Amino acid sequence: MYEKLKESCYRANMQLPRLGLVVYTFGNVSEVDREMGVFAIKPSGIPYEELRVEDIVIVDFNNNIVEGKMRPSSDTKTHAFLYKHWKNIGGICHTHSTYAVSWAQAIKDIPIFGTTHADHLTTDIPCASPMVDSLIEGDYEHNTGQQIIDCFLEKNIDPSAIEMVLVGSHGPFTWGKDASKAVYNSRVLEEIAKMAFLTLQINPQAPRLKEALIRKHYDRKHGANAYYGQGC
Amino acid sequence: MYEKLKESCYRANMQLPRLGLVVYTFGNVSEVDREMGVFAIKPSGIPYEELRVEDIVIVDFNNNIVEGKMRPSSDTKTHAFLYKHWKNIGGICHTHSTYAVSWAQAIKDIPIFGTTHADHLTTDIPCASPMVDSLIEGDYEHNTGQQIIDCFLEKNIDPSAIEMVLVGSHGPFTWGKDASKAVYNSRVLEEIAKMAFLTLQINPQAPRLKEALIRKHYDRKHGANAYYGQGC
Amino acid sequence: MYEKLKESCYRANMQLPRLGLVVYTFGNVSEVDREMGVFAIKPSGIPYEELRVEDIVIVDFNNNIVEGKMRPSSDTKTHAFLYKHWKNIGGICHTHSTYAVSWAQAIKDIPIFGTTHADHLTTDIPCASPMVDSLIEGDYEHNTGQQIIDCFLEKNIDPSAIEMVLVGSHGPFTWGKDASKAVYNSRVLEEIAKMAFLTLQINPQAPRLKEALIRKHYDRKHGANAYYGQGC
Amino acid sequence: MYEKLKESCYRANMQLPRLGLVVYTFGNVSEVDREMGVFAIKPSGIPYEELRVEDIVIVDFNNNIVEGKMRPSSDTKTHAFLYKHWKNIGGICHTHSTYAVSWAQAIKDIPIFGTTHADHLTTDIPCASPMVDSLIEGDYEHNTGQQIIDCFLEKNIDPSAIEMVLVGSHGPFTWGKDASKAVYNSRVLEEIAKMAFLTLQINPQAPRLKEALIRKHYDRKHGANAYYGQGC
Repeated sequence: MYEKLKESCYRANMQLPRLGLVVYTFGNVSEVDREMGVFAIKPSGIPYEELRVEDIVIVDFNNNIVEGKMRPSSDTKTHAFLYKHWKNIGGICHTHSTYAVSWAQAIKDIPIFGTTHADHLTTDIPCASPMVDSLIEGDYEHNTGQQIIDCFLEKNIDPSAIEMVLVGSHGPFTWGKDASKAVYNSRVLEEIAKMAFLTLQINPQAPRLKEALIRKHYDRKHGANAYYGQGC
Repeated sequence: MYEKLKESCYRANMQLPRLGLVVYTFGNVSEVDREMGVFAIKPSGIPYEELRVEDIVIVDFNNNIVEGKMRPSSDTKTHAFLYKHWKNIGGICHTHSTYAVSWAQAIKDIPIFGTTHADHLTTDIPCASPMVDSLIEGDYEHNTGQQIIDCFLEKNIDPSAIEMVLVGSHGPFTWGKDASKAVYNSRVLEEIAKMAFLTLQINPQAPRLKEALIRKHYDRKHGANAYYGQGC
Repeated sequence: MYEKLKESCYRANMQLPRLGLVVYTFGNVSEVDREMGVFAIKPSGIPYEELRVEDIVIVDFNNNIVEGKMRPSSDTKTHAFLYKHWKNIGGICHTHSTYAVSWAQAIKDIPIFGTTHADHLTTDIPCASPMVDSLIEGDYEHNTGQQIIDCFLEKNIDPSAIEMVLVGSHGPFTWGKDASKAVYNSRVLEEIAKMAFLTLQINPQAPRLKEALIRKHYDRKHGANAYYGQGC
Repeated sequence: MYEKLKESCYRANMQLPRLGLVVYTFGNVSEVDREMGVFAIKPSGIPYEELRVEDIVIVDFNNNIVEGKMRPSSDTKTHAFLYKHWKNIGGICHTHSTYAVSWAQAIKDIPIFGTTHADHLTTDIPCASPMVDSLIEGDYEHNTGQQIIDCFLEKNIDPSAIEMVLVGSHGPFTWGKDASKAVYNSRVLEEIAKMAFLTLQINPQAPRLKEALIRKHYDRKHGANAYYGQGC
C-alpha cells in the first residue's frame, strides 16, 4: 500500500551522504501522500549504510505511526506540522550540512549576492530566531514547525516560492514538490551558503544582487515564460 | 555530419562534474565549427549523468537550431555572440564554480599574486560590472555576450591572451581553441580564485606579482621561445 | 585470547583514513578489556594501508607489552594513563584532524554555538593549556594523560559526559564506551570544530547556544527520557 | 641501466594526483642516483594520467639529457642545482598545492604553531624572497636553485633538517632521502600550511609553539633516542 511512497522516501534519504550533506545520522527526509493523509520518513538514528526501504516509517499528520516497526525520526513532529499547515509541499529535508549550519549558528539571513541564488529564490534565505525557553521546554519538535511558519508569516514570504529556511542555532530545513526536490534544495542551499560566506570574506561590502537580475534569473527558470530546461 | 563536433562537445561537458566545477546542471560547454558556421552546445537543464552525445544541440551564430531535438542551454545567445565577435576562439565554458562565483559576487577582479596565475595570463582576471537594468530586461543572454566584449574593450585586453572573465554578480566564462581548452581554463580559474582568496586572508597586503615574473612565466609557456611542454 | 579485542581495535583504526581524519600515520586508536586489564593499540608509524590485525599490540596499564611483535604507538602511555584513571571509558582515539588541531593550536576552547554540538555535549570543548617545560622534558606521554585529567578536574567536567578534549598546541583526544565510539567522537569533533570556525567568520558576535536548547538537545539523545534512536 | 631509478621517480610522481597536490601538470618529482651522477625527472607538460615509466627523462647535474625522448620538466635546472650543492638529498618535489602556494603568494614564513609541524621540523617554514629582476631575466630556473640555497644560508638553516621551502610568489619545493620522501614532505607541508592558516583565522595572536615542545616532538621522531616508528 505504501510501497511507492517508502521507496521514494528511501531514495531521497540515500542521496544525502552521496551529496556530502550528512555525517553519520545527522539528517532526515520525508515525503507526503496527500490523498492517503500520511507521510514516509526515515527512522531515528539509523546509519545510511544500514537503511533499507522496509525501515521507512509511515506517519499521519497527528504523529501516529501508521506502518513500520521502527521509531520515526526525532524531528517527525516538525515534518507533520509543516505538512499540515503548508498544503502545497510534498517533501521535506533536514540536514546539518556544514555551511548552512554555520549561517544558522551565526543567526544571520543569507544575503542574496548572485544569480546562483536568484536561480532558486528571490529573497535572502531567512534565519528564524531561536525559540523562547517555554517553547523549547514544551513540545519542542512541534514548536520548531511553528517557529518556521511564524518566520514566514512575519517576513511575509511564501513557502511555495522560498523553499528553504535556517532554524537559528540549529540548521536548515528545505522542502519542495517531493522528497527529491527537497534534497535538491538542501544541496543548493549548502552551495549558496558557502558562496555567500566566501563573498563576504573577499568583500565585506559586497552589494546585494540588483532587483532586475533577481527578477530575470528567477523568471527565466520559474516565471510564466520560463525558458530554462526542456519545458516538461 | 556534426558527429565529431557533438562528440567533442559532449566529452568537454562531461569533464565538468569530474573536475568538481558543477553541481546539478549549473554549467554548459560549447564548441564551434568555423567552416560550417555552427556550434554544438549542451541542452538546457539536463543532468550530466543523463546527458548523451545525441542530446547535444547544433546552433548557428544567429541562434537558430540547426540540429537536435532538445532546447539548447539558456545561455546559448551568450555563446553565439562571443563566437560571432571573437573569431579566434573555438570553445566556451560557463560554470558556477564556487570560488570564481564568489569573486564575481564580490565584484572584484582577481589580482595576479603568483606564478600559477602568470603561467596562464598576464593580467588580473577581469570582473565585468553588472549590466544596467534596461539591458537585463532586454535580450539578456545576448547582452551578456556584449557585456563581456565591452569589458575587454574598456580594459584594452585581448581575448586570445586572456581566456577568462568573471561576469559580476553571476560567474565565470572561459574559452580557448576548443571546448576542452575552455574547460581547462575553468578549472585553472577556480584554482587561481581559491589561491587568491587564501593569499589575501593570510596577508591583506600581499603584493602584486612583479612584472619580470609575470613576463618570465607567461613567456616560458606561451612566448615565441616557449620551452614548457613537448613543443607540439 | 586477544583476537576479538585486536580485531575491534583494528577496525576502529581503519575508520580514520576513510573518515578523512588522518594523513599518513598521524593518528592512533585503542580499545580496552577491563577484565583482562589490557588494551589493544595501533603499532607506531605503520601506514594504514599496510596495517593488519596481527600488528595490533596488547599493552597493560603499566605500559608493558603483553602481546605483539611491534612497538606500540608513541602515545601509548597517554592511553594507559587515561584508562587507569577513568574507569568508565572503553576506547580512545587520537588524530591530527585539520580543524580540531587548528583550534588546539589557537589554544581556544570551542564555544558551543549550535544543536550539532549540544547533541553530543553540553559544554564548550575544553582546550588543555600546554604543559610546563619540566613535564615536557620528563615522561611526556604519561604527563599528557595527566594534563588531560587535570584539565577535567580544573573545569569540573565529567569525562563520561564530555568525551573529547583538545591538547593545546597539539591536537584532539576523544574517547567513548569502545574504540568505535571514540572514533565517532573524533569525526563529530572535527565537524563541530569546522562549523564553529565558520560561525565566527560569519559573525564574530555569534551568541553561545542558549541553555534551554543545550539541555533539550542533549537530553533528547542522552537523558533519562531520551527519544532519539531506536532505544537499544 | 636506469630502470630502477625511472620506476622510482615514476611512482613518486604518480602519488601527486592521488594526494590532491596537483591539478593537470602543475608539479614534478625527481630522484637522484649519486653514483651514476644523474637524476630522473618527469617530462614537461605531460598529464599524469598519460605518464609512463619510459617517459621519465635522465639528466646529469649540468642539465644534459642522458636518456629519454622527451623534454624534461621546465624546472629541471632548479633540481640539478639543488642536487649539485646539497649532497645529502636524494629526491625533490615541486607542486602548486593550494595552501602552500597561498603562503608563498603572501610572502610569509609559515609559523610553527603545533606538534604536527614540530614532528617534521623545528623552525618556521622559510619563504624565500622573490628574485631580483636581473636574475629572473637571466637563467631563471638555475637561479631559482640559487635563491633557495641563499635563503638557507641567510637563515642559517640546514637542508638535512628543514626539508621544505616556499619560493615567494611561486610555490613549494620539498626534498628528502628519495623521491617518495620528498612527496611525503609536500603532503605534510600542505597540511601544515592549511592548519597554520586556520589557526591564525581563529586566533590572530596564536602563540608560537614553545621551545620545549618543538624539541620533544622533533627528537622523539628524529633524535638520537627516537622512539617513534619501528626503528628500522
